[in-house]
Amino acid sequence: MRVCLNGKLMDDAEAHIAPGDRGLLLGDGIFETIAVRKGQGKRLHAHLERLRRDGHAIGLDVPWPDTTLNALIERVAQENNLDDAVVRLTVTRGAGPRGLLPPATPNPTLLITAAPMPDLSTPISVVVSTITRRNEHSPLSFIKSTNYLDNVLARKDAAELGADDAVLLNTQERVAETTIANIFALIDGAIITPPVEEGALPGVMRADVLKLARGEEKPITVEMLKGASEVFTSNALGLRSVIAIDGVAVSDGEPGLITQMLAARL
Amino acid sequence: MRVCLNGKLMDDAEAHIAPGDRGLLLGDGIFETIAVRKGQGKRLHAHLERLRRDGHAIGLDVPWPDTTLNALIERVAQENNLDDAVVRLTVTRGAGPRGLLPPATPNPTLLITAAPMPDLSTPISVVVSTITRRNEHSPLSFIKSTNYLDNVLARKDAAELGADDAVLLNTQERVAETTIANIFALIDGAIITPPVEEGALPGVMRADVLKLARGEEKPITVEMLKGASEVFTSNALGLRSVIAIDGVAVSDGEPGLITQMLAARL
Repeated sequence: MRVCLNGKLMDDAEAHIAPGDRGLLLGDGIFETIAVRKGQGKRLHAHLERLRRDGHAIGLDVPWPDTTLNALIERVAQENNLDDAVVRLTVTRGAGPRGLLPPATPNPTLLITAAPMPDLSTPISVVVSTITRRNEHSPLSFIKSTNYLDNVLARKDAAELGADDAVLLNTQERVAETTIANIFALIDGAIITPPVEEGALPGVMRADVLKLARGEEKPITVEMLKGASEVFTSNALGLRSVIAIDGVAVSDGEPGLITQMLAARL
Repeated sequence: MRVCLNGKLMDDAEAHIAPGDRGLLLGDGIFETIAVRKGQGKRLHAHLERLRRDGHAIGLDVPWPDTTLNALIERVAQENNLDDAVVRLTVTRGAGPRGLLPPATPNPTLLITAAPMPDLSTPISVVVSTITRRNEHSPLSFIKSTNYLDNVLARKDAAELGADDAVLLNTQERVAETTIANIFALIDGAIITPPVEEGALPGVMRADVLKLARGEEKPITVEMLKGASEVFTSNALGLRSVIAIDGVAVSDGEPGLITQMLAARL
């Protein structure tokens, strides 16, 4: 696999991440997952805007200009012979002395990797996670940081229960998002999704769905979600129909029509 | 610096962490911080017991036997010519395919590093963090995982406010711990610390303090903490007197006598 480390393209076996990298030791990093289709990075402007906003929120300046990052994102897909790819751009605060306090002048690490685009056409079943909660009291709930162990554990638990993903509730027991996506429900004819204050990451695709579907941000209880006419998830890769929650069919158990119409246009 | 990677000793410049390591990308790792004094690892049994318990909680088997880890911990300190050292042992779930789901048979990464032992004799001032909360609803609140960005941000904020550490409250606004330590208060003649259910990491030193001081686990409000006769923190490196909270002196603003007596015996 070809990767980009700090601006240079190389085989992954040659990419040396320092053992003192704060991304590795402290989860002191942020990332973006970007769809590349036919060699073109999608929603690049919005992704890099969020990356910089997240960097600002954690006090980490992303020193590479947008034009450089845009070019590298497409280049890494290309170097891996992937016309359609999922590209991940990770920025950590780099290596530093022992302790939590960030160095005064950090030397960030930039890592760009690519993987084949997965098939999103099949609908999914989800469970409502009972093992952890999304912390809407933490700034990390609106930052795409590398602190994903809660999500990993919920995803693992979902797999053990035979589901494809897990819905994470916030500390008030209301719906926040899934382990890898925002969540939308069609209720009384309106497309709704939890507000960011409920612990929902402000997804780039989420913003586009809200705009296209004239959606509303509104708190969603588990009961509301389970009683919705349609449920779908959204992330940078696209939309996916949710046809079952905790083993019970959503509506008639078939992918929803509105979901399919939106998915085709995004 | 000499480090140990997957059982082998090497210079850190030669230690190659794969760009696909889940520790780096997803915070999918756990760690222990261990004091080495006069070449001897302290509380090794308790540390490795917790490491394995944490591994079990996230579904990650730590394949190296205790005897190997014990020897390596002391060896890494020695290779860095440190009689007294802070050794950090990190275990991640290693590299794997894209996505949150852990590989069926992970190939974990073991990294052991050492740093000089800091001076703990000086008392500290703390602030009560207003920027984030400890999530007592997550299993990560009792696992020493590498998901430390909340703590990094609180520590950074504390530094900007001129304090040495930050007290993290849980989602109920009660005291959980600090960014790097458990917290104890002397109230009405009793040594108390928040129960694990309040979002306090079950620290190895915390257990020893509770035993030695015949302490009690009891929820602590900010008001209680600020009104305590003595306050101190505890982590693997030792105990530290807290002499000010949010700029106001604890008691007479001098290190407490009970704290000093306990510190000398631990």
